[in-house]
Amino acid sequence: MVQYQATVDRAFHALADPTRRAVVERLGIGAASISELAEPFGMSLTGMKKHVRVLEDASLVTTSKVGRARMCMLVPYAFEGISTWLQRLDRFAQVVERTKGVA
Amino acid sequence: MVQYQATVDRAFHALADPTRRAVVERLGIGAASISELAEPFGMSLTGMKKHVRVLEDASLVTTSKVGRARMCMLVPYAFEGISTWLQRLDRFAQVVERTKGVA
Repeated sequence: MVQYQATVDRAFHALADPTRRAVVERLGIGAASISELAEPFGMSLTGMKKHVRVLEDASLVTTSKVGRARMCMLVPYAFEGISTWLQRLDRFAQVVERTKGVA
Repeated sequence: MVQYQATVDRAFHALADPTRRAVVERLGIGAASISELAEPFGMSLTGMKKHVRVLEDASLVTTSKVGRARMCMLVPYAFEGISTWLQRLDRFAQVVERTKGVA
């Protein structure tokens, strides 16, 4: 349970940065190398590697060496747990809103 | 856009803490005072107030004074944007996984 919580902590922390969210969106359309990810941000490879490492530590992105490039891709189903949790909360909040003052 | 990004940053940051996620889950079953939220964690009111403030700054929780207590509740639809975004990513990741090596 503590391990699960730590993974969720890392996932939310990783997504609390707009550059990392943009990287994740880019990977949503397919795998990309570190340099392909860095280029549109005008970012150094070192800077992008750090962001990718945070996403990797959070088990949201996986990387593999392909020739001289390091290719990055989204981990399938990685977002399923937290998105289901958030949707459930939203349904509860809507029910609470609708029943306010009824009881 | 920058304003929207900052709000999303704050939402993910707020949810990157297990105590704050537990508070949000508790509020999923209905409004609660700061002391009702603090009690199960054996936490001081001051400590819980800080967590609630972070959730309030992220527009996930709203509070109001009721008599001598400060009541907290979830903001309806607050999680909708980020949960939709995460679901979409997950669908993309699954498509990428299924089509790997097909092209």
